[in-house]
Amino acid sequence: MSSWNPRTGVAVAAPPDSTPGQVDNAVAAAVAAADEVASARPAERAAWLEAIAAALAADRDDLAELADEEVGLGMPRLTGEAGRAAETIRFYASVVREGGWLGATIEAGRPDLRRMRVPLGPVAVFGASNFPFGFGVLGHDTATALAAGCPVVVKAHPAHPRLSAALAALAGDALNGAGAPAGALSLVAGFAAGSQLVAHPEIRAVAFTGSQRGGLALWRQAATREQAIPVFAEMGTVNAAVVTETADPDEVAAGFVGSFTLGMGQFCTKPGLLLAPAGLAERVAKALDQAKPQGWLLTEQIAATFGEGVLGLEGAGARLLARTPGTGSGWQAQPAVLAVTPDRLRRNPALLEEVFGPVALVAEYADVAERDAVLDVLPGSLATAVHAAADDPDLPALVARLSRRCGRVVVNGWPTGVAVGWAQQHGGPWPATTAPAHTSVGSEALQRFLRPVTFQDAPDAALPPALRRANPWGIPRRGDG
Amino acid sequence: MSSWNPRTGVAVAAPPDSTPGQVDNAVAAAVAAADEVASARPAERAAWLEAIAAALAADRDDLAELADEEVGLGMPRLTGEAGRAAETIRFYASVVREGGWLGATIEAGRPDLRRMRVPLGPVAVFGASNFPFGFGVLGHDTATALAAGCPVVVKAHPAHPRLSAALAALAGDALNGAGAPAGALSLVAGFAAGSQLVAHPEIRAVAFTGSQRGGLALWRQAATREQAIPVFAEMGTVNAAVVTETADPDEVAAGFVGSFTLGMGQFCTKPGLLLAPAGLAERVAKALDQAKPQGWLLTEQIAATFGEGVLGLEGAGARLLARTPGTGSGWQAQPAVLAVTPDRLRRNPALLEEVFGPVALVAEYADVAERDAVLDVLPGSLATAVHAAADDPDLPALVARLSRRCGRVVVNGWPTGVAVGWAQQHGGPWPATTAPAHTSVGSEALQRFLRPVTFQDAPDAALPPALRRANPWGIPRRGDG
Repeated sequence: MSSWNPRTGVAVAAPPDSTPGQVDNAVAAAVAAADEVASARPAERAAWLEAIAAALAADRDDLAELADEEVGLGMPRLTGEAGRAAETIRFYASVVREGGWLGATIEAGRPDLRRMRVPLGPVAVFGASNFPFGFGVLGHDTATALAAGCPVVVKAHPAHPRLSAALAALAGDALNGAGAPAGALSLVAGFAAGSQLVAHPEIRAVAFTGSQRGGLALWRQAATREQAIPVFAEMGTVNAAVVTETADPDEVAAGFVGSFTLGMGQFCTKPGLLLAPAGLAERVAKALDQAKPQGWLLTEQIAATFGEGVLGLEGAGARLLARTPGTGSGWQAQPAVLAVTPDRLRRNPALLEEVFGPVALVAEYADVAERDAVLDVLPGSLATAVHAAADDPDLPALVARLSRRCGRVVVNGWPTGVAVGWAQQHGGPWPATTAPAHTSVGSEALQRFLRPVTFQDAPDAALPPALRRANPWGIPRRGDG
Repeated sequence: MSSWNPRTGVAVAAPPDSTPGQVDNAVAAAVAAADEVASARPAERAAWLEAIAAALAADRDDLAELADEEVGLGMPRLTGEAGRAAETIRFYASVVREGGWLGATIEAGRPDLRRMRVPLGPVAVFGASNFPFGFGVLGHDTATALAAGCPVVVKAHPAHPRLSAALAALAGDALNGAGAPAGALSLVAGFAAGSQLVAHPEIRAVAFTGSQRGGLALWRQAATREQAIPVFAEMGTVNAAVVTETADPDEVAAGFVGSFTLGMGQFCTKPGLLLAPAGLAERVAKALDQAKPQGWLLTEQIAATFGEGVLGLEGAGARLLARTPGTGSGWQAQPAVLAVTPDRLRRNPALLEEVFGPVALVAEYADVAERDAVLDVLPGSLATAVHAAADDPDLPALVARLSRRCGRVVVNGWPTGVAVGWAQQHGGPWPATTAPAHTSVGSEALQRFLRPVTFQDAPDAALPPALRRANPWGIPRRGDG
């Protein structure tokens, strides 16, 4: 296996692909650790997460440098992302301590029913290329699976194999130091290792962040298993931003360019389409020409697919408005914006397929009917945005219409920023995810890795602590007085 | 299509299978109704459910008679089941009114994030043979999908086609009278109609209750769709009951026979295995000989599969202990109990596959090690039971061990009774369900048909009522002061 530098296209050696025996060993270690990980008190598991967060924060700068060699996103972005990843892991530790995720519910009566959630068991995590920290080895999926009490086997992303190995080693030491069992977290590498994980009978759930094609392939593979398991595939989408006449067009144009070129457009929440009144296309083109965003795509394949994707949009009837020329080194991106008519958008579904990277469409609508006709054919997405004056009489209906097609509606902002908290949703209708009831970001992300159990007429001594009459863990419980 | 009387094996005419055009029309009607069903206030949807419940309760006796002609479960059971189904629908109406299912969560700050759950859209429901009311056209799946705000297209079960049509007509009138849109609930019939539903691009989720084979087939079919949708298949399992030395063996033997022959063993929560100290097998055989339960199996196919299943258990090394002879009319069942050694149970997985109908295994263990060795190879199940004195020092460890393998642990009772409430769980690890995070019974069953949406920085007027600052619906909200 090789680790490529996007700036130069030059490779250095990376850890080799895992052998089938190594994958089996990683899963066996997860199975062996499962009971201990599951039965640890919330405070104990929270401390494990905090140990990982502390180690990540302490090594932030070195890790960001290593990441930058592999993904070329630049030090400001990567040190920021690593720091936020540490904060995120601490947030999940606080979620674990709070205990509401257990869903403890008590219905004392005849029968006496007491319900809580328990971990599913070993989880396979497939990290993403574009957030080596946020959705990498120690990203949301790993942190929430561990938080929920599940051992994790991560499949390293080939875009950052050395960073993946470094993060797994760092977390392994931190977990060990905090008293977590060996096997709580393992790393495997290589395409075959990933397939083996999805097929493995001891894997109880799969979490994936990445492309449509990748997510769909995993989902279909999992459906050939003898035992059904949940597959939580979060996939990039075309996230539409709608602008009304009451918005400030120059502010929108500049914000849009900033958002769709952030991280060289390699965000699953990138706004890929601006649906706006006449005049916006020209302003966006001008804003792109002024901003001249420079950067590299994560991998050779992403660079190739990006180029083909832009050509595909042109072939489907979009017209190039502006493009920032690259200097030609490595996998440098050429951010571009294209114009398309609402009519073409409605008639050609190819225009509404995600092109990963710094490209976006602008469609100018003549009137509200034309605008809403486009909104009604939008595929599901992770997020959408509306730009309008707060007192725009159209705003409530627009927000309601958009909310039917996405997991998050942003008003007068851009979807690329995803705050981590109790009220966040990162998911949405197909094709945003295979599991629309769930999220990969925020406190509710733990729920993917849990299942409920009800205890009927069990005496106090036979109940788990979360359901005992004295509530020894002091967690919030429903129906408990 | 025919409707068969299990007591006689004689058929009368039933409504014909739906044509492909009729299935398309049913889905189109659901799509047309979706926004109105979704946007109805909780109190409004609750009133729709209450109208159905009232109509069902009013026609209970006539419906039970019709059901008895088709499933032969007897009037006491069927009037009881119909009455409980009406109560259950009322319970879900109360759940809708309470509003906690919306999961409204508010995180006021920068950004201001507000999260709630919204309905998925049209749901396909596949009813079960064995509970023509409880899991039929107006059973848990239909009631909770409607409660969640999703239109429903039900596929009638061929074991009770005339009852299915009567229930759909009754509910259609009730919904219409209560002001619900046409298309909120439709019925289709026939195997091909079911396949068409699962493949239909406008169907957003599938709920199924039934056999392993049926559930798995639907799940695999759904995985060939272009758009991934959740499939909630709840499937019958071998539900183990464990007995310790401190339990009363005669009471256990009588209770076990009563539970595994209830409804002629046609419960997905039937205890299919008793793991008990020496002496229990003989007692169970005696209890069966004394009880002499009489009844019919639901369909010719179930009768045939039951006969083969019992022969299969014998072929796998179980020994017939007692069997109640039938009189030979229709699809009369011959309830049976077989003995098997713990060693054989552990070594032959065929002994741990569900045989639907009134048959159960008794395995006598010599010591705790032998008992626990069996527990460690049990497949996942909907429920388990333990019989032991409340102060049995072994009880806590047994309950904990069983809770890892099922959705509900019953202490000193039998799993066949499933109370409907806030703390119930009807689901479990594979092979009990394709979606272990969910339940088909109880307040949480609505969650299958919902997905979260977050509103970021939306002004109050653009928020749905559940998230507005004044909380006009008066629902419980997290983070709201």
